[in-house]
Amino acid sequence: MLKGYDFKAGKNPYKQFKTKELGERLSRAQRLINNLNIPVLIIVDGWESSGKGFVIKDLVKELNPKHFKVSVFENPTEDENKRPFLWRFWNKLPKKGDIAIYDRSFYFNVFNDLSLTGEALDKDIRDISSIEKLLLDDDTIIIKFFLHQKEKTQQKRIDKLKEDEDRSFMISERDEEQYENYGDYLNHFDTVLNKSDFTFSKWHVVSSENKKDASDNILGMTIDLIHEGIDRIMGMKNGGLRKELRDYSPQEKPLEKVNLKLELDDEEYDKLKDDLQMEAQRLSFRLYTNGIPTVMVFEGVDASGKGGAIERLTREMDPRGYEVLTTAAPSEDEKAHHYLWRFYKDFPQKGDMKIFDRSWYGRVMVERVEQFADMEEWDRAYNEINEMEQHLHNFNTLILKFFIYIDKEEQLRRFKSRETEPDKVFKLTDEDWRNREKWTDYIEAMNEMLVRTDTDYAPWTIVEGQQKKYARIKVLQTFIEQAGKILDETT
Amino acid sequence: MLKGYDFKAGKNPYKQFKTKELGERLSRAQRLINNLNIPVLIIVDGWESSGKGFVIKDLVKELNPKHFKVSVFENPTEDENKRPFLWRFWNKLPKKGDIAIYDRSFYFNVFNDLSLTGEALDKDIRDISSIEKLLLDDDTIIIKFFLHQKEKTQQKRIDKLKEDEDRSFMISERDEEQYENYGDYLNHFDTVLNKSDFTFSKWHVVSSENKKDASDNILGMTIDLIHEGIDRIMGMKNGGLRKELRDYSPQEKPLEKVNLKLELDDEEYDKLKDDLQMEAQRLSFRLYTNGIPTVMVFEGVDASGKGGAIERLTREMDPRGYEVLTTAAPSEDEKAHHYLWRFYKDFPQKGDMKIFDRSWYGRVMVERVEQFADMEEWDRAYNEINEMEQHLHNFNTLILKFFIYIDKEEQLRRFKSRETEPDKVFKLTDEDWRNREKWTDYIEAMNEMLVRTDTDYAPWTIVEGQQKKYARIKVLQTFIEQAGKILDETT
Repeated sequence: MLKGYDFKAGKNPYKQFKTKELGERLSRAQRLINNLNIPVLIIVDGWESSGKGFVIKDLVKELNPKHFKVSVFENPTEDENKRPFLWRFWNKLPKKGDIAIYDRSFYFNVFNDLSLTGEALDKDIRDISSIEKLLLDDDTIIIKFFLHQKEKTQQKRIDKLKEDEDRSFMISERDEEQYENYGDYLNHFDTVLNKSDFTFSKWHVVSSENKKDASDNILGMTIDLIHEGIDRIMGMKNGGLRKELRDYSPQEKPLEKVNLKLELDDEEYDKLKDDLQMEAQRLSFRLYTNGIPTVMVFEGVDASGKGGAIERLTREMDPRGYEVLTTAAPSEDEKAHHYLWRFYKDFPQKGDMKIFDRSWYGRVMVERVEQFADMEEWDRAYNEINEMEQHLHNFNTLILKFFIYIDKEEQLRRFKSRETEPDKVFKLTDEDWRNREKWTDYIEAMNEMLVRTDTDYAPWTIVEGQQKKYARIKVLQTFIEQAGKILDETT
Repeated sequence: MLKGYDFKAGKNPYKQFKTKELGERLSRAQRLINNLNIPVLIIVDGWESSGKGFVIKDLVKELNPKHFKVSVFENPTEDENKRPFLWRFWNKLPKKGDIAIYDRSFYFNVFNDLSLTGEALDKDIRDISSIEKLLLDDDTIIIKFFLHQKEKTQQKRIDKLKEDEDRSFMISERDEEQYENYGDYLNHFDTVLNKSDFTFSKWHVVSSENKKDASDNILGMTIDLIHEGIDRIMGMKNGGLRKELRDYSPQEKPLEKVNLKLELDDEEYDKLKDDLQMEAQRLSFRLYTNGIPTVMVFEGVDASGKGGAIERLTREMDPRGYEVLTTAAPSEDEKAHHYLWRFYKDFPQKGDMKIFDRSWYGRVMVERVEQFADMEEWDRAYNEINEMEQHLHNFNTLILKFFIYIDKEEQLRRFKSRETEPDKVFKLTDEDWRNREKWTDYIEAMNEMLVRTDTDYAPWTIVEGQQKKYARIKVLQTFIEQAGKILDETT
């Protein structure tokens, strides 16, 4: 997209407007997307010293500061390097009705690292395409600009910056790098831009030879692209382009095959438990010292014993090394973001362990059954979840997903026992009884989930939960086996 | 508190109970504070290798993981060092009904730094006492433990750790330091403990010569102290100890002295504006390069022109260097924390600028007038706010507080003009009209606020807002003057 780029063509198609007029139009577009609750993400990437700051200043000049936010992405900090590379961008995504402007972007690493080519590059681009696709499907408007300039122009600009006392701090190592190796970067940028010019999210290369023109161009295009985006989204909401049918027919029903007779006698249990807990502790230390992040998911029918299994698993672990996160109904702020957003920010950094008691799988269980998400939304969620877990896996995360199953009669027994025990009665709510009435719907959703999100890199472990002791031992054993495996592979 | 400490006295007054029984009692206490919506903060500090991890493991063993969280504080990271030292602890405070356990604490810096003595130490302790007092006044239960051990015991423990393959990573530089200089640390810890053994928040020194005893001791004391705390809080809620009258009588009314005739003619304004905006830009770069954080607060009556003043102030600044934060009604999560919590997390790191469009001063204005806070709460807020701002000031933060004032007639004119202009009508809400009916109450609250929170380190600038142009220039000039001053002092 950069090679043979015509710097002269269509310099400024918006030149009949003053910059201020364009700004005011954008401000009206902002009010529109704010009223329609549509999030907008504008990426301003490009060469060093190509005027990203200049352009962004004009972009926001007339905007209502309550509803936009500029995020600058520099070299990742020490803390950020302990997370998958998309993590810091997830945290700055716009909420519904707001505009987020990224100075640099998801593409930070791939643009800067000339040595990133071939499969490694493709893998990162695939991760980026997943997040853009997922935001787009969630009715986000994404606009990607790349500011392009000639070699001579860049050199002139950097030289000028160097002479400016107030601004010389802005010259980074990257400026110097690009100054020396314009040709190499041109090739690399071109490759990356071509690979990431997705049909659903295109790049807009803008000449910054003249900054004022670049700025007007970007303002004008942003206004047009926001309106285009609104049309697309409103069209879909009115039934236009949404998929009407999903391409899945239930084949397998893993929960029908669960052997609920599996049991351990007390003696066996006592003999196993202490040793396994000590071994789990030992492995948790090794995961920590080897910098391996761990994500565990516990799902299951109500009263299947998730809490008890988590307690037994972590019994001997150092509480400073793990955290149990329970997933309740989303807050207002969480509802204003993509459904994965609230989980993303809790993902572990290297060496940490996060245990999710219920999780993002709510999207394809409770949100499906209670119709908080429509079919098109939960149908695509399987794939979104798989891609997110793959991104974690690419960062060498240990991912363990447990589904604990009990049958309907056992659930009733447990509900009744909770009703009568004073220390347990708080665990039983009206909602539990209501969910029970939808048992069949839940089982159908659970079966589909267990089939469609069972991947090589993040397989489900179905735990026979009828006898609590059996379930707890199986969880411990699975953790020990999988932790041992990833440690062997890593060390 | 450590010198002459009797390691033999009252070894374990809870020995009639099994650890598991104590754990279950604590778990019941947890349910109690959860039902009563009381936050609990447990600090476990002490010597290196004194068994903090061991103790914390027993503390949480029987707790419901949904309502406790363990936070470990190690040497501050690169990012954390860019903030005032209390910042990272604020972010981990318990929400109402939850228990937060800190492994190390606010005292991290003061305990570790042997060279911290005299006034510098007193200053830090004063900051810590403010936060403890403020949490206590907000009905938090704070429990502070210090694990103490003999020199020989510490050396034995560190030697043993060194031999343990799985755990040797736990030995830090601090262990080695204390190993070599037990006597110096003993003196220093003793000084710090004595200085921070506040009447309202005492230290509990616990011998860890025997870890099991230490653990039972801490479990038992925690249960007792939680019940004590509940009694105190419930007693106050029932009218017992709350102050009935505040010790303030309105003397001054700064808003009565505002000269609303001040104006600039168009020519003067145009002449001044551009130069001042460029100068503001230049200073904003210098604040950035000098690593000075900036906090600006904009308050004022409705329609006084806060937004417009912020826009003109930042017009030429790089939008990547500042952020405008608007303060709406608090979310559920924010309501479950201290009222300052949501602002604290947004405070700038070194070099950044955060502009608050409305702020923590809502506590003594809208919350007072609408009676969301009771008199005792807003009356003590003046002091809490002053102390928080002092903590920012101690970190060399540029603090600017603007209060823009217009009279009641001018407000009416602006409301009416908003009603008729299509681009402005969104700015006017029913709430604005309702607030207007309480004009006198608001003015009374504002006058008191302007008197009681006008400090040397964070003074108010009252801005005559009747003519927007005059107000905007005054804001620009004040910023330029104060930024220049802090830069002169710093560089």
